[in-house]
Amino acid sequence: MQAAQNQGSDTDLEQIADLIEIARDFGARGWTPATSGNYSIRLGDGSLMVTRSGTDKRKLRQADLMRLDARGTPLEDARPSAEALLHVQIYRHDPTARAVLHVHSPAATVVSRRSAATGSIRLENYELLKALRGIETHAAAVELPVVANDQDMSRLAAAVTPWLERSKLPPAYLIEGHGIYAWGPSVSDAARHLEAMNFILECELLERR
Amino acid sequence: MQAAQNQGSDTDLEQIADLIEIARDFGARGWTPATSGNYSIRLGDGSLMVTRSGTDKRKLRQADLMRLDARGTPLEDARPSAEALLHVQIYRHDPTARAVLHVHSPAATVVSRRSAATGSIRLENYELLKALRGIETHAAAVELPVVANDQDMSRLAAAVTPWLERSKLPPAYLIEGHGIYAWGPSVSDAARHLEAMNFILECELLERR
Amino acid sequence: MQAAQNQGSDTDLEQIADLIEIARDFGARGWTPATSGNYSIRLGDGSLMVTRSGTDKRKLRQADLMRLDARGTPLEDARPSAEALLHVQIYRHDPTARAVLHVHSPAATVVSRRSAATGSIRLENYELLKALRGIETHAAAVELPVVANDQDMSRLAAAVTPWLERSKLPPAYLIEGHGIYAWGPSVSDAARHLEAMNFILECELLERR
Amino acid sequence: MQAAQNQGSDTDLEQIADLIEIARDFGARGWTPATSGNYSIRLGDGSLMVTRSGTDKRKLRQADLMRLDARGTPLEDARPSAEALLHVQIYRHDPTARAVLHVHSPAATVVSRRSAATGSIRLENYELLKALRGIETHAAAVELPVVANDQDMSRLAAAVTPWLERSKLPPAYLIEGHGIYAWGPSVSDAARHLEAMNFILECELLERR
Repeated sequence: MQAAQNQGSDTDLEQIADLIEIARDFGARGWTPATSGNYSIRLGDGSLMVTRSGTDKRKLRQADLMRLDARGTPLEDARPSAEALLHVQIYRHDPTARAVLHVHSPAATVVSRRSAATGSIRLENYELLKALRGIETHAAAVELPVVANDQDMSRLAAAVTPWLERSKLPPAYLIEGHGIYAWGPSVSDAARHLEAMNFILECELLERR
Repeated sequence: MQAAQNQGSDTDLEQIADLIEIARDFGARGWTPATSGNYSIRLGDGSLMVTRSGTDKRKLRQADLMRLDARGTPLEDARPSAEALLHVQIYRHDPTARAVLHVHSPAATVVSRRSAATGSIRLENYELLKALRGIETHAAAVELPVVANDQDMSRLAAAVTPWLERSKLPPAYLIEGHGIYAWGPSVSDAARHLEAMNFILECELLERR
Repeated sequence: MQAAQNQGSDTDLEQIADLIEIARDFGARGWTPATSGNYSIRLGDGSLMVTRSGTDKRKLRQADLMRLDARGTPLEDARPSAEALLHVQIYRHDPTARAVLHVHSPAATVVSRRSAATGSIRLENYELLKALRGIETHAAAVELPVVANDQDMSRLAAAVTPWLERSKLPPAYLIEGHGIYAWGPSVSDAARHLEAMNFILECELLERR
Repeated sequence: MQAAQNQGSDTDLEQIADLIEIARDFGARGWTPATSGNYSIRLGDGSLMVTRSGTDKRKLRQADLMRLDARGTPLEDARPSAEALLHVQIYRHDPTARAVLHVHSPAATVVSRRSAATGSIRLENYELLKALRGIETHAAAVELPVVANDQDMSRLAAAVTPWLERSKLPPAYLIEGHGIYAWGPSVSDAARHLEAMNFILECELLERR
């Protein structure tokens, strides 16, 4: 039992190390301008580590992460990112999720503004769709949700809920003028999902359909 | 008193170190091509440190900064950047300003040329607007001034004055074909304002409205 | 004879070292997002080294390569990239080929989607066409094949075959929504071909003809 | 006399060091894809150092440069870049030129193709025009020549000659589908001219007039 817990702790530490590396990589690409973006992981014990409000994600250190319980209540005396509630919601709906990544990439921001009226964007004929779980051919069409932005996090979460309850959606969604959320069973899976989605959004933008 | 002064000096040194780091970062992004751009900070004693004329901002060193008094008169035998007067003007109008950053990013240059006829550009529905002081929702519309370029710095400053006197404007403006100025109560605040504005201008360009 | 073999081995090691360097370079440019892309070299003894399935090409190490015989049968207990068959096919058709590189660059992905209906794209009046073997003037028009994507590798290879049998084609082709393949008599030659083609595709995209 | 020569040698060494740094910088920006581009400096004794044919400019070393006399005749047993004749021509027409830089940037390549029919491109209202010698206001309009590409270097040089003989032109020209040449009284001046011109061409492309 003790050994199992230790293994759990080791995995948590690996996830934190991976998150720090990914945060610096995404930051260098210009996806977290002006201290924007937020990241979280779910630890082995079910609690969450979320980025504190206002930190520079390009220079993420372990001290910039704070602990919340599974419902989003801070377990330490600090202010989590305003959008921690959206992370909590994703972990609740997807029991396999262990990491949630949110960035403000130019492609996600621009496509989300353009597609907000339609409510989603249809992506097909990209080999990279296969980077998503359960997708085994480029011929599959993927519907990526786009929800309206809202400063009231409960209301924003409520707009996201119907999408999370549908099956066969990619582990990602856009918020209008605000960027992309993506998740997965590990930091590297979530990062692969985010990268694949963002690459496809860049291509859509270059095609300007 | 002595102690207070020493603390002041320490803060000044931190601002200089932050400015050198930001200058290299912005340079690496291609925002200060061909030795363009200029930067300044206001020291604890009210005097200014401004980049000398013609230096390569990508390799900024402390020796590339020179001291001016609050009215812009050089306190040492060197030639400040031609646009030092615009920095002086910003510090005079905004008593909280401690750093002014000016770069020639492609997005700011192109948008400023396109919007010069209108005199300003209206930005809304970007979550990143919240990176500006006093803005707490993406739904706020921000009016970013665009003034015509002029080689006569007094005349250029006169064109900027009415904008600086209006309230509720972002701590930034564009000059036609010339780039962006942004400021704030510290180097990192000014950099955050500049980054947020530039990110939004890049998005506007990608949307090509 | 022994000496000749040793020289052969040295060359193989050099090719592996070059491949690792190129993989990191191409990765840093964003050409292998979300673990996409695959690479191979043909060794002096005719066998192949191909990237394993699912590895992050931006951090390619020698251990991420596995050995296949000339017909594509694994010589070790691991799973090669799903597209290894396309590499085998190129080596079979071009006896001078010693390296095959495949990436998902944005330019190749977008142009391939746009030109899939026509089946090829005509490139001319680029000085960089001279980077291709046998091309000695920018005035030469080059026809770059674009084949439809397919998850059945035998069928995809069959679609490529007629192109490989034609002469006077560049050592490269596109797959719709999937990216570019390029090859050459060494890793650096294949990389030069890929870079030249990709540069020209970026220009085509900027021209948006 | 001996002392003067030594000073000359010191300056030559500094120019070589600056050229190596600039070549790596321009290479990292993607301006010399597929071993393209070429560079030269004029030494204190009037002879030239020019990049050898086929070298990777991103990794330029002093050994990649070879010596030519002022008329372009190799002073050592190696093959200079095919375009060395264009460098020789610039040094002959501009006695103040000490460095010539040629790159294949995407912006220069695309704009040169688009403007080849007109024979030149008019640039105005860019503050960065002031980076060119003799230009003291953004309001000056600069006419940048665009000559048709040609594999016959004597014929290509002949097409350039009338432009070099006109006064009030920028120290730069474009060749259709081939990129940009820029020069100046030192490596850093030539680099500043090239960077300023290329920045403005990128802006023109973003404006897509």
